[in-house]
Amino acid sequence: MALIVKKFGGSSVATTEKIMGVAKRVLAEKEPGDRIVMVVSAMGDTTDDLIKLAEGVTKDPYQYTREMDMLLTTGEQVSIALLAMAFKSLGQPAISLTGALAGMRTDSVHTKGRIAGIEPERVLQELKNGNIVVVAGFQGADKLGDPVTLGRGGSDTSAVALAGALKADTCEIYTDVDGIYSADPRLVPGARKMKEITYTEMLEMARLGAGVMQPRSVEVGQAYGIPIHVRSTFTTKPGTIIREDYTMEEKDFEIRGVAHDAKVAKIAVLGIPNTPGIAHEIFSALAKANIDVDMIVQSIRNIEKNVTDMVFTVASGDLSQAKRVVDEVAAKLNAVAVLIEEDVAKVSIVGAGMLGSPGIAARMFGALAKANINIDIISTSEISISCLIKGAQLNEAVNSIHNEFFPQQA
Amino acid sequence: MALIVKKFGGSSVATTEKIMGVAKRVLAEKEPGDRIVMVVSAMGDTTDDLIKLAEGVTKDPYQYTREMDMLLTTGEQVSIALLAMAFKSLGQPAISLTGALAGMRTDSVHTKGRIAGIEPERVLQELKNGNIVVVAGFQGADKLGDPVTLGRGGSDTSAVALAGALKADTCEIYTDVDGIYSADPRLVPGARKMKEITYTEMLEMARLGAGVMQPRSVEVGQAYGIPIHVRSTFTTKPGTIIREDYTMEEKDFEIRGVAHDAKVAKIAVLGIPNTPGIAHEIFSALAKANIDVDMIVQSIRNIEKNVTDMVFTVASGDLSQAKRVVDEVAAKLNAVAVLIEEDVAKVSIVGAGMLGSPGIAARMFGALAKANINIDIISTSEISISCLIKGAQLNEAVNSIHNEFFPQQA
Repeated sequence: MALIVKKFGGSSVATTEKIMGVAKRVLAEKEPGDRIVMVVSAMGDTTDDLIKLAEGVTKDPYQYTREMDMLLTTGEQVSIALLAMAFKSLGQPAISLTGALAGMRTDSVHTKGRIAGIEPERVLQELKNGNIVVVAGFQGADKLGDPVTLGRGGSDTSAVALAGALKADTCEIYTDVDGIYSADPRLVPGARKMKEITYTEMLEMARLGAGVMQPRSVEVGQAYGIPIHVRSTFTTKPGTIIREDYTMEEKDFEIRGVAHDAKVAKIAVLGIPNTPGIAHEIFSALAKANIDVDMIVQSIRNIEKNVTDMVFTVASGDLSQAKRVVDEVAAKLNAVAVLIEEDVAKVSIVGAGMLGSPGIAARMFGALAKANINIDIISTSEISISCLIKGAQLNEAVNSIHNEFFPQQA
Repeated sequence: MALIVKKFGGSSVATTEKIMGVAKRVLAEKEPGDRIVMVVSAMGDTTDDLIKLAEGVTKDPYQYTREMDMLLTTGEQVSIALLAMAFKSLGQPAISLTGALAGMRTDSVHTKGRIAGIEPERVLQELKNGNIVVVAGFQGADKLGDPVTLGRGGSDTSAVALAGALKADTCEIYTDVDGIYSADPRLVPGARKMKEITYTEMLEMARLGAGVMQPRSVEVGQAYGIPIHVRSTFTTKPGTIIREDYTMEEKDFEIRGVAHDAKVAKIAVLGIPNTPGIAHEIFSALAKANIDVDMIVQSIRNIEKNVTDMVFTVASGDLSQAKRVVDEVAAKLNAVAVLIEEDVAKVSIVGAGMLGSPGIAARMFGALAKANINIDIISTSEISISCLIKGAQLNEAVNSIHNEFFPQQA
């Protein structure tokens, strides 16, 4: 008699056969009395196809963010309609709801919307009517009713937020991996699957590039206290449950995992006056453009002339926009130069126990040194340490660090 | 300084190049101060592609009408987004609105919705903001906000109804023909283009199969008194204006045109008791299923046994559903048989002057007789006469009748 939100991504619904497979699987696992809300993404490459279509009209369609949202939200609308039909053809009452119809209220920052609130009445009513409710992920509507997409990882966020608003028992995120690993198994063959992980640790892993879950969805799960079960689309065995605290003792290792992020770019603003407010000048301009800045280092270039360098990283996808913003500010500040480096990557270790274990950082740097990898920038948080390195050395770095903290069993 | 609604069909926006072409054309013809609302259909074969996709999930997707609407409304949503981008990339402010956002309120008869009302506030506001407003044709939303498609010819109806609600000066319907002809030019090479035609005549032409305009859109035009300008997507020369009355004397001929409809099927319910209420029994069942019945003939089969036959026609697209309904009623009435004939077609003549000219019918029947064409059913209205004939003879029939009333100039 549980209320469960199940989220299936684009690759899980890439074809009509797969859509039918998802419907069958969900019905096979459904216990009598279970109330089920499905959150689905657009089919496979639909979003890319739509973007290509827009590029047939105009070179840079993303400058028209509202119209991009109008275009892209059709992707999920197609998959919810088909999945609802699949359920119905199997004899299971079902109904599809766009983000707007499901009560997902957003702000008006098109293509990067945030959930402003959820009005779950319609979904609850349709559940009461005996339906499996199939909701379009990744999207909502603003005050005008205009469609707004939630940006990267939006479907996960939709699912978890909806689970929160519905007071669901759990939110299941189906992906092409079967849980959260101590490192990306594609890079580290010996990576270990975890049974549980805390929101805080997962949040840090995700923020630092662990691709399985987007940080925003974990934040939302934490805010609502909804356990998030990350599991495989292809098997029925349990995955990893993200929750507030461990229900079992699984903490055999000093760190929880090694995260990495290759989609990083470094921007260096060289030779700017070292006066108060300079950092604010640069980063408030970036914030205004909705660009997240990650690692930041300010270093002295010339102490006599009181001139400094400001170096920081942004997501690769934000680079061209960030460059435009920074160039403008740099000109105003009479900076010597703005340098861009794209071949960089970030490798991080994460673990709640880190604070109590001195020497963890040293072991990480040691593992990198052993692999002859130079560290460009270091940043730390309460539960993580990150190093910016050359992109080409990322694979080696992750393996070297993972091997240090999770030595292979003989 | 006119307010103009312009409707472009699916073939006019079939590719991104064509979408750009439409945007350029509209801007080239736009007078300073003109306020323009575009109503567009889904791109080319999009609707068919979506139906095929649904058939990948379930054999008869149209049984799930609400989900079909959820699916099909994405078609227009794609084209409005792209057309709005096209305008914007040409420097013209523009905004796309789905049927729901444009205030098109419908009933809840999914896949065959009717407009229940239009709330034009958003469209007017966006015009005031200086935008060309690009509205999704063919669709609206019901009380719940669920998407509803308007069924056949829905885009024309959307456009004309929106023009009415906006109190537009005119509604331009762009098609692949350049106006209304005295017969379908594909069948009758000598057919003549009309400068004007009244709503009533056009309505009758459309009802009788003239494919250019759907009857409902003409009805709506008449109700609001909006002149409808039917013109070509490919040329800029004027087409045919549909309005209440002629502004010029163009009535050189006794009839306005020859219409035909090949998408007709005949249903005969044979050997049913000739008692009061029989017709009601059959046709109320069909009405309940939302199936329009056209020509009806009741004839005596056996006067002693007081047994009768009921013969009528429906649109080919409704045939399978109609057959299901009729079979059920026929069984209840102990009918001898239900016969279906699909190779039939309807040819009609239309003209407001017909009433005052006796002998018109005789000339029509004469033209058919001359071509050795048998008449199966005849039906008449105040401004039209229709004959049901064999489908294979349709081309010959139309030409023979057209030649009788519109003799070729030497």
